Amino acid sequence: MKREGFFITLEGGDGSGKTTVLGRVAAYLQNHSMPYIITREPGGIEIAEKIRSIILDPAHTAMDARTEALLYAAARSQHLAEVVEPALQEGITVLCDRFVDSSLVYQGYARGLGIEEVRGINRFATGGRMPDLTFYLDVDPEVGLSRIAANQNREVNRLDLESLEFHQKVRAGYELVTRSDPQRIVVLDAGRPIHMVEQDIVRVLKDRILKDF
Amino acid sequence: MKREGFFITLEGGDGSGKTTVLGRVAAYLQNHSMPYIITREPGGIEIAEKIRSIILDPAHTAMDARTEALLYAAARSQHLAEVVEPALQEGITVLCDRFVDSSLVYQGYARGLGIEEVRGINRFATGGRMPDLTFYLDVDPEVGLSRIAANQNREVNRLDLESLEFHQKVRAGYELVTRSDPQRIVVLDAGRPIHMVEQDIVRVLKDRILKDF
Repeated sequence: MKREGFFITLEGGDGSGKTTVLGRVAAYLQNHSMPYIITREPGGIEIAEKIRSIILDPAHTAMDARTEALLYAAARSQHLAEVVEPALQEGITVLCDRFVDSSLVYQGYARGLGIEEVRGINRFATGGRMPDLTFYLDVDPEVGLSRIAANQNREVNRLDLESLEFHQKVRAGYELVTRSDPQRIVVLDAGRPIHMVEQDIVRVLKDRILKDF
Repeated sequence: MKREGFFITLEGGDGSGKTTVLGRVAAYLQNHSMPYIITREPGGIEIAEKIRSIILDPAHTAMDARTEALLYAAARSQHLAEVVEPALQEGITVLCDRFVDSSLVYQGYARGLGIEEVRGINRFATGGRMPDLTFYLDVDPEVGLSRIAANQNREVNRLDLESLEFHQKVRAGYELVTRSDPQRIVVLDAGRPIHMVEQDIVRVLKDRILKDF
């Protein structure tokens, strides 16, 4: 009987290096011949893409914070149903760039809707599905934002335009959320050079994933 | 000190006569010089209209039931924030065609997501705001659907294409939901001629609304 794939998510503020780290995790899985996919919401899913375009449209400054949180949850449930669950059922490991924790932090904490309230709508959206393992890349927002500013290839969206104060709130929110689930969420100091972050990741993957595979 | 406006909603299956009844309620308020607005989600609110167009697109047959429920809740919170709450604060009575009860019935019961689960995401969407008074127009689905078929001006959308069996589930769902809040929800036999339904409505409005105004 085939076992379910591992569900691994990456979390972190803007400029924390999620994309780079994602590539390193993928390379590790590749080297160990573990089938995997890399995805992020909305993940090319038509309905979820349309939902996300509503959220990120810079013209929508009048968007209610609750509306935004519900739209993220809606895009999440569709992406989960169409991409994540089918892969996991096939025994394929899923690497996902951001998941429920992002909503708890951004909408629940930073926008003040309440972490538990946002957890409630996300429990509905996911039917209770949670990652087996989450890497949180912790970095000072000033460092993160300066990395973004240096990367001219990156498109600027509505969320990037938030103030530094908002990003500091995001970091404080991640501190609360990671503390609430230390078994699942591994906190990494992402202010260090990438090869050091990578060493930590490989150690955790060996310990948590490879031994079960 | 100005008092808040009354929040009145209409509920019922397709073809139950909500539009006609809405006009009668409006005429009554007009005759008693009560300021009011008539609205329905998405109510011309740009963000909510875009959300609704995703829900109702006949091409989206792959839409997950949870996604749909979350999108309705998202459109609701935006419409509430931009239209309903400002009017109520101004002392204006709001007549709204469908509200939370529709989601409890359609997504919670008929699509099987669970009435309490859907109530949870809607409590988030509304911040707990509920109508002061709800009229539920109860009619046999076969009667309702034949009324729709006779009305050629009405656009057919994805929901109209559901089977008769689905509409019968909707009616059973309304029975459960109305029973759970008999103080707020007035059940009207909408299989009768409209002037009889109207008499009942006027009696309720006199009793519940006009005495407070």
